[in-house]
Amino acid sequence: MSLNYEHLLPLNGEWKQKITDWLSEDVASFDYGAYVVGDNLDDANLYCKQQCVLSGVVFAKEVYKQCGITNIEWFYKDGDYLDPQTMGKDGKIVVAKITKTEVRKILLAERLSLNILSRSSGIATKSNQIITLARSSGYKGIIAGTRKTTPGFRLVDKYSMIIGGCDPHRYDLSSMIMLKDNHIWSVGSITKAVESARKVGGFSVKIEVEVQSEEEANEAIEAGADIIMLDNFSGDGLKVAAESIKSKWSNTQKSFLLECSGGLTIDNIGNYLSNTIDIYSTSSIHQGTGIADFSLKIVKH
Amino acid sequence: MSLNYEHLLPLNGEWKQKITDWLSEDVASFDYGAYVVGDNLDDANLYCKQQCVLSGVVFAKEVYKQCGITNIEWFYKDGDYLDPQTMGKDGKIVVAKITKTEVRKILLAERLSLNILSRSSGIATKSNQIITLARSSGYKGIIAGTRKTTPGFRLVDKYSMIIGGCDPHRYDLSSMIMLKDNHIWSVGSITKAVESARKVGGFSVKIEVEVQSEEEANEAIEAGADIIMLDNFSGDGLKVAAESIKSKWSNTQKSFLLECSGGLTIDNIGNYLSNTIDIYSTSSIHQGTGIADFSLKIVKH
Amino acid sequence: MSLNYEHLLPLNGEWKQKITDWLSEDVASFDYGAYVVGDNLDDANLYCKQQCVLSGVVFAKEVYKQCGITNIEWFYKDGDYLDPQTMGKDGKIVVAKITKTEVRKILLAERLSLNILSRSSGIATKSNQIITLARSSGYKGIIAGTRKTTPGFRLVDKYSMIIGGCDPHRYDLSSMIMLKDNHIWSVGSITKAVESARKVGGFSVKIEVEVQSEEEANEAIEAGADIIMLDNFSGDGLKVAAESIKSKWSNTQKSFLLECSGGLTIDNIGNYLSNTIDIYSTSSIHQGTGIADFSLKIVKH
Amino acid sequence: MSLNYEHLLPLNGEWKQKITDWLSEDVASFDYGAYVVGDNLDDANLYCKQQCVLSGVVFAKEVYKQCGITNIEWFYKDGDYLDPQTMGKDGKIVVAKITKTEVRKILLAERLSLNILSRSSGIATKSNQIITLARSSGYKGIIAGTRKTTPGFRLVDKYSMIIGGCDPHRYDLSSMIMLKDNHIWSVGSITKAVESARKVGGFSVKIEVEVQSEEEANEAIEAGADIIMLDNFSGDGLKVAAESIKSKWSNTQKSFLLECSGGLTIDNIGNYLSNTIDIYSTSSIHQGTGIADFSLKIVKH
Amino acid sequence: MSLNYEHLLPLNGEWKQKITDWLSEDVASFDYGAYVVGDNLDDANLYCKQQCVLSGVVFAKEVYKQCGITNIEWFYKDGDYLDPQTMGKDGKIVVAKITKTEVRKILLAERLSLNILSRSSGIATKSNQIITLARSSGYKGIIAGTRKTTPGFRLVDKYSMIIGGCDPHRYDLSSMIMLKDNHIWSVGSITKAVESARKVGGFSVKIEVEVQSEEEANEAIEAGADIIMLDNFSGDGLKVAAESIKSKWSNTQKSFLLECSGGLTIDNIGNYLSNTIDIYSTSSIHQGTGIADFSLKIVKH
Amino acid sequence: MSLNYEHLLPLNGEWKQKITDWLSEDVASFDYGAYVVGDNLDDANLYCKQQCVLSGVVFAKEVYKQCGITNIEWFYKDGDYLDPQTMGKDGKIVVAKITKTEVRKILLAERLSLNILSRSSGIATKSNQIITLARSSGYKGIIAGTRKTTPGFRLVDKYSMIIGGCDPHRYDLSSMIMLKDNHIWSVGSITKAVESARKVGGFSVKIEVEVQSEEEANEAIEAGADIIMLDNFSGDGLKVAAESIKSKWSNTQKSFLLECSGGLTIDNIGNYLSNTIDIYSTSSIHQGTGIADFSLKIVKH
Repeated sequence: MSLNYEHLLPLNGEWKQKITDWLSEDVASFDYGAYVVGDNLDDANLYCKQQCVLSGVVFAKEVYKQCGITNIEWFYKDGDYLDPQTMGKDGKIVVAKITKTEVRKILLAERLSLNILSRSSGIATKSNQIITLARSSGYKGIIAGTRKTTPGFRLVDKYSMIIGGCDPHRYDLSSMIMLKDNHIWSVGSITKAVESARKVGGFSVKIEVEVQSEEEANEAIEAGADIIMLDNFSGDGLKVAAESIKSKWSNTQKSFLLECSGGLTIDNIGNYLSNTIDIYSTSSIHQGTGIADFSLKIVKH
Repeated sequence: MSLNYEHLLPLNGEWKQKITDWLSEDVASFDYGAYVVGDNLDDANLYCKQQCVLSGVVFAKEVYKQCGITNIEWFYKDGDYLDPQTMGKDGKIVVAKITKTEVRKILLAERLSLNILSRSSGIATKSNQIITLARSSGYKGIIAGTRKTTPGFRLVDKYSMIIGGCDPHRYDLSSMIMLKDNHIWSVGSITKAVESARKVGGFSVKIEVEVQSEEEANEAIEAGADIIMLDNFSGDGLKVAAESIKSKWSNTQKSFLLECSGGLTIDNIGNYLSNTIDIYSTSSIHQGTGIADFSLKIVKH
Repeated sequence: MSLNYEHLLPLNGEWKQKITDWLSEDVASFDYGAYVVGDNLDDANLYCKQQCVLSGVVFAKEVYKQCGITNIEWFYKDGDYLDPQTMGKDGKIVVAKITKTEVRKILLAERLSLNILSRSSGIATKSNQIITLARSSGYKGIIAGTRKTTPGFRLVDKYSMIIGGCDPHRYDLSSMIMLKDNHIWSVGSITKAVESARKVGGFSVKIEVEVQSEEEANEAIEAGADIIMLDNFSGDGLKVAAESIKSKWSNTQKSFLLECSGGLTIDNIGNYLSNTIDIYSTSSIHQGTGIADFSLKIVKH
Repeated sequence: MSLNYEHLLPLNGEWKQKITDWLSEDVASFDYGAYVVGDNLDDANLYCKQQCVLSGVVFAKEVYKQCGITNIEWFYKDGDYLDPQTMGKDGKIVVAKITKTEVRKILLAERLSLNILSRSSGIATKSNQIITLARSSGYKGIIAGTRKTTPGFRLVDKYSMIIGGCDPHRYDLSSMIMLKDNHIWSVGSITKAVESARKVGGFSVKIEVEVQSEEEANEAIEAGADIIMLDNFSGDGLKVAAESIKSKWSNTQKSFLLECSGGLTIDNIGNYLSNTIDIYSTSSIHQGTGIADFSLKIVKH
Repeated sequence: MSLNYEHLLPLNGEWKQKITDWLSEDVASFDYGAYVVGDNLDDANLYCKQQCVLSGVVFAKEVYKQCGITNIEWFYKDGDYLDPQTMGKDGKIVVAKITKTEVRKILLAERLSLNILSRSSGIATKSNQIITLARSSGYKGIIAGTRKTTPGFRLVDKYSMIIGGCDPHRYDLSSMIMLKDNHIWSVGSITKAVESARKVGGFSVKIEVEVQSEEEANEAIEAGADIIMLDNFSGDGLKVAAESIKSKWSNTQKSFLLECSGGLTIDNIGNYLSNTIDIYSTSSIHQGTGIADFSLKIVKH
Repeated sequence: MSLNYEHLLPLNGEWKQKITDWLSEDVASFDYGAYVVGDNLDDANLYCKQQCVLSGVVFAKEVYKQCGITNIEWFYKDGDYLDPQTMGKDGKIVVAKITKTEVRKILLAERLSLNILSRSSGIATKSNQIITLARSSGYKGIIAGTRKTTPGFRLVDKYSMIIGGCDPHRYDLSSMIMLKDNHIWSVGSITKAVESARKVGGFSVKIEVEVQSEEEANEAIEAGADIIMLDNFSGDGLKVAAESIKSKWSNTQKSFLLECSGGLTIDNIGNYLSNTIDIYSTSSIHQGTGIADFSLKIVKH
């Protein structure tokens, strides 16, 4: 059985309504151009023109489906690496081919499908670059994203991180409980904050605690935190602390992960990587990243 | 009377529901952290940490309002230029200040408001850079964006282009009719395509025609097109053609604009600018642009 | 290629959800009658019983589709002129025929489809009457509607005006900027108001200015207004002013349209028509107009 | 205690969302005009310029509220009779007065509130005319509307009939079960159809049966129908049949109402009215009726 | 023609959107399990493991349809009596069989379909038990439910009462007007309250009045109430009063129903049943009732 | 700082829209009763008439707020234990008091608020009974609910479990990954299934594996499962296996929880409880549970 990332999207659900809403965003009232082109049938190619990890096909497929386009064949799938120079012709790869379809349907689907593919593949590609770099440095742990996603577009953003080989990190405030300094001040101690969190989150929701010192880390682990975010540690201090903490709990059944965050980018992450740290999280893989270049062209006959 | 960009957003409408949806995107079910911090009152500062044109305040205000935060004072408004190095302290400018507010409200509003401000200001800043460059080169015309916006987020993207000093270009397929080669092939001629478009679009909707030659441009203008997109013209050929077209119609009542597009960026636009071209459009001012860095910090007492 | 007004409606979008909502408006909870009639199969005819320009078929088709009715054949299309006396039998024209379909599906679709067709054709017919009258008087310009449409039903209302041969005028407040006296007072002058409007609307949105005098008209044209609404001009004064304005700008590249509005009806418009005026707008073609009579009958066997 | 028709609308519910949707229908994206007028404060009058029964105030109030207009005073209420000639000045009655309010709020609310008031009052007025005529002819029964309402606007249409003094008839297919010939054919007999309907509708939902003969009427009454629709009876035949039916059941506990429908208008209803018939229903009071003329003007200072 | 309860649900409408919403409730973002199982095809059985009246199939079918499951065969329908001990094998009845279907589709549909069937059949079964008991006691009237349903789930709850053989009672506040003591105090008298209600409800909506005495009952009947709710009557006093009221109006054309409510359960209703009372209403048939046990199992090959 | 369960609900979000939808469910069109009672002001008490753990106040408050009821005082909060016999008067406790409020607002809010409170408190009470029983038996672990909640009402159901002292278990398919036999068959082994799940779920989502034997349990733990569901173990075999598994991993850093499920109720759970099992899950605390009795009465003056 081969695994298929598209299955991550439920067969029916809000995300399909979102695609409809996004189509509506592009046609407030009348589709004048559709009237002008009418029902002529034509073929079209969806091209990739830039080296990238392909991502967003699952969403693009739904766009075409909702626009009544059924004659479409996909030659690549989410997660595939595309290199137009070596794999394509004239610097372009035909990612999908639409045949004998009303031009007005193609023109309606065009902009939205490209807007999704270019952004999603941009994130997947950036994610892939950083994890590839990390692996080549010998790092075996996790590189994760953040909740700094485009409002309303988180599902695509998080999906693209997964496609690129990174960890999407917690989906939202309901998915994992993150206790930062503010939470802890309010309750009085790390221990009490973790207890409060566990009381309502139950056993199925993980708890992460942000700590400022080794002492706080140990208190959090003792209290049952699942992940420890080491905040405010200097470069070497970080590794020293991480090793000390890991060592302290090594023969116990307290299992936990260590996370490091803050200002990491593909340019500086090499300085921080250590296998003692389980997770490095960075918004640089999905926020303000570039896009991948796709286009859709009617085939002239 | 001073003009206020915030008035561009209607007092009531879908965009406020969008803010609610975006808040929901961040809390699928329970807000566990809110339970932990409870109703403690605190102050918080919204900081800008990067040189930018501020944009998105109108949306952020609605986020805070929907989260029940009323004690908030804003020190800057959309369109203001912020430079933390010269205007701030410790490399940070206090953009807004929240006082005596339940921490759980602040933590709920935090991520969404920052996600909007950072993206919106990123686009406004990039738009501002390119128009500033163009003005300094003596260009008096328009630099415009495109429809290559993030799905569901177009209102913010287009708003940010305006804030940055660029033209948002047509909002969607219903706002201006753009006739490309596909439309024209279908109908048989530019003249017929423009007539079809005018028939349904009426007098209130502009029509733009993409042309491949000076001859086609003249046909489109004769047919009544409002804007001519010069496609596929080489650098100098573009200016020559533009001047020839402008000259041909100069003593007539045919009024039209010339637009140029395709692969323009802040790095290469200098090579193309000419006051004979009324509009240069480029997605580089809003797609794959960087973000501006904002953060929100509880004030420790 | 024959043009088809139905293509004005996007293949997917909010308007299809509207049809669903309208069906729901007619069945708050249970469809008791459907239970009573059950799954008997039957045929039905959709009749037109009144002279009219047929309009609304594109919406009615979606109603039938959503009710699971697939065996339906349409004999006429939007824009066709129907005259039951000369074209029909017993004063009725069979517009469409449903065959071998569950009666409960037909009864569910019946009321909504008729409510749409009767209103839409009523507007198309009234629009057609006035433009026909104008053409027979030698008027070559535009007769347009207004924004005085039924709330929630604007798409059908505007569509029907187009079908009838009139211009739908601006769709909403976002489609064309109309500057009236209030706008101008606020800013101080017509010139400043047009500049403000252009700043945010950009090049793709037209600007119309309502003026009280020839002098104001000239200021507006100079400022770049696309359309001039001549308000408060008496019958002959209107034509005199219009000619004077047109003449003044005739050898310049300032292109603009002149619009006249206010209290026009099919009964009085003959007194005002002049080819110097480009557009006459009137709500009388869509507000408080009569309906066209349609009915749907099961065929007794 | 004075009764107030506004209370018919629930304090919270879908209708308030509908008002929001209708506002959105008028501003697809940006409210350019609002930007131009800015935050100037001004006064405005809502005028009635035509004799009518005022209706729709409850909806208009919600429009103003959603647009942030709080300084508004209403001088009339739904159901009031307005005669600008005798009650007003210069042919206009000031129905409501807005004071010291941002002009952009007023301009946003203007069109929607007028579109509702003009349609609603048009229906209330027409309804009032027909019931007044009927009463003056000595008719003591009910004049009712139908389900032939504008899609999406039924709540306003039905409300307006009530305001005008007519009966709104069943709200939708779930409110009262109407068994027509199709239903009866399917089940085999009137008796069986009524039994089926009662089985699912229960005791709280009324059942109406459309009959073609006195015999059928008696079968329907025997079966327990609450209302008998006399279809296809000629003028005098109608009254004769009605009296015969009423007489037959006069000493029994079978209580029922007789309804007559089909082609009734204010011009012909006088020929049909008889107190033996309990209900006359006609779509002429709400479909294709004229509108009442309202306008909103900023007060120049 | 056989009647089919499924027809009570309209072919298109809000209830289908509700099913989509309920599916979304179970997958806030990603369907991780679907990714793991992939597209393997398998068979599955839907079992009933408890004696019950089957109900909810119409909703479950829509769940399967929305999850893309088309290969499903149902062996029973809503209203069928299921007894696993006598009709099944190993204490289980195969209610439906899914064949050759992707496991991920089955797993997505599983929980929601079972949650509906178990609740709906629970209510239908309880409703059936009480009406069966009543019939065996010689009671010929109506046992009805109430509006004490689960918020958002009323359609299923009311549907299940019908399936079980009980009357769903009024659907909501718009379906039948119920005048209780509060309503009457406000207006001053039962007569005035009924008149007010009739004025707005019209002839198509029934009116029920809650009375405390025989005198009040008579006033309500005189005023035209359709149903009289006898409140606060002791056991025998109830029957005496009911007979006295029925007798008083027996030779008139005032037709009305008598209802009795309050604290009735399957355990005590036997003490109250009398054929003089037309309706006994009780929330015990749908609120806090048990569920019926269903499960869905993949068939191991 | 005292913790407040109400904070679990976000300040703005879908759940408030749900309350609006639930109100709409009870008023399809007009609120006739509201018209009859008008704007009389009155007081009302919300009573609890049954021993219970109060739950649902956070939702009821929103109902009252949306109905415009602001003069309301609550004397108890979610989680409080109420015993009308010992704490109330005449077998009733005044839970909240509404003063000087329009009766029509109270009548609109009445049914929905009671429907929520009665169900929510029913679940909280049942949850509390079972955890109290478990604690009195010396069990220190977790009793959890399931996903067998009422469609559309899960938020209230899960909230009520928390209020009653139980664990809500995973919220939905996106919250924790549960790998059952089907998932494992598809992938080939427990190890591969866990790896697949971790690949997409990332570090922040827990993974639970259902096992049939001690051997499988050990494979799952080795693979990194967070929770092991022991399925198909007989009473004593369960405890023996649990102890053996716990013992095997006791000196390692593999941390995991053991869960037991299937047919547990308050009547039989005593036979199964063992502190070696970390979690017992049962739908009996929220599905088919009874309700708690609440009522709302206008105070007669």
